[in-house]
Amino acid sequence: MNYNEEALIMHETHKGKIEVCSKVELETKDDLSIAYTPGVAQPCLEINKNEDLAYKYTAKGNLVAVVTDGTAVLGLGDIGPKAAMPVMEGKAVLFKNFGGVDAFPICLDSTDTEEIIKAVKMIAPTFGGINLEDIAAPKCFEIERRLEEELDIPVFHDDQHGTAIVTTAALINALKVVNKNMEDIKVVINGPGSAGTAIAKMLMHAGVKSMLMCDRKGILWEGRDGVVGHKLELARSTNPEGVKGGLAEAMVGADVFVGVSSAGLLTPEIVKTMAKDPIVFAMANPLPEIMPEEAMAAGVKVMGTGRSDFPNQINNVLAFPGLFRGALDARARNITYEMKLAAAYAIAGIITEEEISPDYIIPSPFDKRVAKEVAEKVKAAALMADTK
Amino acid sequence: MNYNEEALIMHETHKGKIEVCSKVELETKDDLSIAYTPGVAQPCLEINKNEDLAYKYTAKGNLVAVVTDGTAVLGLGDIGPKAAMPVMEGKAVLFKNFGGVDAFPICLDSTDTEEIIKAVKMIAPTFGGINLEDIAAPKCFEIERRLEEELDIPVFHDDQHGTAIVTTAALINALKVVNKNMEDIKVVINGPGSAGTAIAKMLMHAGVKSMLMCDRKGILWEGRDGVVGHKLELARSTNPEGVKGGLAEAMVGADVFVGVSSAGLLTPEIVKTMAKDPIVFAMANPLPEIMPEEAMAAGVKVMGTGRSDFPNQINNVLAFPGLFRGALDARARNITYEMKLAAAYAIAGIITEEEISPDYIIPSPFDKRVAKEVAEKVKAAALMADTK
Repeated sequence: MNYNEEALIMHETHKGKIEVCSKVELETKDDLSIAYTPGVAQPCLEINKNEDLAYKYTAKGNLVAVVTDGTAVLGLGDIGPKAAMPVMEGKAVLFKNFGGVDAFPICLDSTDTEEIIKAVKMIAPTFGGINLEDIAAPKCFEIERRLEEELDIPVFHDDQHGTAIVTTAALINALKVVNKNMEDIKVVINGPGSAGTAIAKMLMHAGVKSMLMCDRKGILWEGRDGVVGHKLELARSTNPEGVKGGLAEAMVGADVFVGVSSAGLLTPEIVKTMAKDPIVFAMANPLPEIMPEEAMAAGVKVMGTGRSDFPNQINNVLAFPGLFRGALDARARNITYEMKLAAAYAIAGIITEEEISPDYIIPSPFDKRVAKEVAEKVKAAALMADTK
Repeated sequence: MNYNEEALIMHETHKGKIEVCSKVELETKDDLSIAYTPGVAQPCLEINKNEDLAYKYTAKGNLVAVVTDGTAVLGLGDIGPKAAMPVMEGKAVLFKNFGGVDAFPICLDSTDTEEIIKAVKMIAPTFGGINLEDIAAPKCFEIERRLEEELDIPVFHDDQHGTAIVTTAALINALKVVNKNMEDIKVVINGPGSAGTAIAKMLMHAGVKSMLMCDRKGILWEGRDGVVGHKLELARSTNPEGVKGGLAEAMVGADVFVGVSSAGLLTPEIVKTMAKDPIVFAMANPLPEIMPEEAMAAGVKVMGTGRSDFPNQINNVLAFPGLFRGALDARARNITYEMKLAAAYAIAGIITEEEISPDYIIPSPFDKRVAKEVAEKVKAAALMADTK
C-alpha cells in the first residue's frame, strides 16, 4: 500500500480526522432548557462558588490540549502550525482511540518561548491536561518546566517522555533476554535532543549507573566545545569523570545503544566493540542508525527500531494514551517519575517471562491491554504520591 | 420540570456536554500508517507548500473556537472562565446540532483586552472561525474590531450580532403585521450594551431612519454626562438633533421598543404614549422589561421576549449556526452586513405572509429549515460580495 497517496485521499475525503460531538440530545424544548439557558446557569453558579466542580460538571477533566508551534514536526522539522495540524489531529485520534481521552489540537502561531507559555496558560481553564508536541529543543525544556510550575494541571512533552517511557519499557524486557541488570549495564545514547535527553534522565531514574551521551561531535563532557545549556547539564550528570572521544570510543564495551539521531550513524565495526549480547535501539526515522539485518549480522542480540515493519517497534502510542488516562483519573497535578516508571513497567509487564524473546520485547500498539494497564498503574502511582 | 435541578444532574452524569471524536477508523496497522506516521507527513508537506490546503486536508475549515473570558456570562455577569465552561459547551452543542459546525470552547484566563486579542491570534491556525461569547462591553467592541482586522478568518461576537440578526428578523415580520415600513418607523432601544449597540447599527443598515437609544440616565445625546466611547458614537449616529429626556420622553410616538436592559423598565403608561399598533421586544432575561400580558393590555400589537414560554422568542440559536455554516462554506474572510442582513431575511422568510400573525413572527428554534436557509443565503451573500 502506498501510504503517502492513501493518506492524501483519506485526509481530503474526511476533511481532517476530528470532530466535536455532543454527548447530549437536543430534540425538545426541555433538552434545550437543560443543556443551555436557563438550566445551564446552575452548573455555572456551582463552579463559580467552587472551581473544583469544573471537573464534575464540565468536560474539562477529560480534555487534553495537544499543543504545538510546528517547529519540530515528525522528521519534517519547522513546517509551521498549519502544516502541523494533520499530526496534531492524528495525535487526538490516538488519544481517543487508545485512551478514551478527548484531545484537541492547538497549533500556535508563534515560535517564541514566552508567547507559547503565555498562550497555554491563557487557554488552560478549558483543559484537564496539556500534551506538548513537536516543539523544537532546547526551548521545549523551558516551556515544559515553566508550565509544570505555573499550571495546576499535568503537562507532558510526549516527544521527550513518551519516547523515554517506551524505551525504558523495551530495555526492561531486553535486559531479561540477555540476563543483565539496569544497575550493571553501560548505555550509550546518541542524539541529545528532546527524546535523548528524556531517555537519559529516565534510565537513570530506572537504575542505570553508567551512561555516555554523544552528539555529532562525540561524547558530551564538561568543557567541550558546544557543550552548553542542557548538554552541559547532561555532561555533568552522565559523565562526571570527563571521558572524551567520539561515538566509536564511547561504544567500546557498551551493553546498550540508544539512537535518536540520524540514519546510518552506527556501523557494524562499532557494534563489534560492544559488550557481550548487545542491545541496540536504533530509532531514527524513517531510516534507523543501523538496519536490523546489519546489526544482527554484527552480533546484536536484541534490536528495536521506530518502524512498524521490523520487530520491536518503540512507539509512543504505547504510553501517552494510558498515561494521560491514569493521570486524569487520579486528577494528578504533575506527571512524576514514579508515574512514568509505573507506565514503563506496565508496558513491559504485558509480555510474560515465557513470551519474551529477542523479537518480542514490546507489545503491539493494537494490544488492547496496554493502555488499560498503563492507566491503572499510573493512577495508582499518582494517588500513592498524593501529587494532587 | 425543574430545569435547575435537571441541569445539575445532566451535567454531572455526562461530565459536560462535548467530546472530541475521530472521523476515521484505527483498527489496523494500515489505518495507523495512513492517519498517523508515516502517511500523515504527506498532507503536512502539502500544507507547508500551500497554507490554503489546510482547508482541504484538516478539520480547520469546519472548526470554530467559542472564545470567552467569562466576564459577561448569561445574566450572571463576571463569573470567570471555568464557570463559563458549561455555557461555552452548550454553545458548541448548539453549533453542532443546528449547523453541523465543530465548535470548541476556549475559556481564557485573562480579562485584559490585549491579552485576549493576542491569545486568539495565537490559537487561530487551528480554526476556520472565531465566535466571541459573553465578553463584557465595551472591551468586546475593541476585541472584535482588532481580530476582524488582524485575522484571515471570520470573527463574530454572537451577543452583539446574533441578537441583532434575530431582532431584525422579528422586526421584518412584525412590521408586516402592522403594515409599516422600516424607513418610516421610530425605534427606541433601551440598553446600549453589546446587544443594544449591534441592534442599533443593524437596524440602520436595514433601513431604519429614526432611532433613539437610552441608558439608565435616559436618551443618549452628545454632551450628556456619561456619553463617551461607544455611547458617544451611538449618540452621534442615532441622535444628531440632540433630543434630550428620559425613556418616557423618548417613547412618545415610537413605533418600536427594543429592550436589552432590565426587568420592569417599561410601564404600561409609557406604552400608551407610543404610536398606533406598537411593537415591543422586551428581551431582558429572565424577567422582561414588561410582561406580555401587561403590554398587550396597554395596547401592544406585537410582542417578543427572550423566553421560550411566551410567543415570539427572540433566540440567537436561529442565527449563529446557519450563519457560520454559510460563512465557512463560502470561506468568507469577514462577516459583513450583507451576510447578517441575508441571515435576518432568511429567518423572517421561513414564515409565509399567510402564516404571519402577532403570535408568530419568528420561527421555532427547532424548525429544521432555519439553519439550512440561513446558511444558503449567507453563503450566497458572501460569495456575491467576494469577501474572500
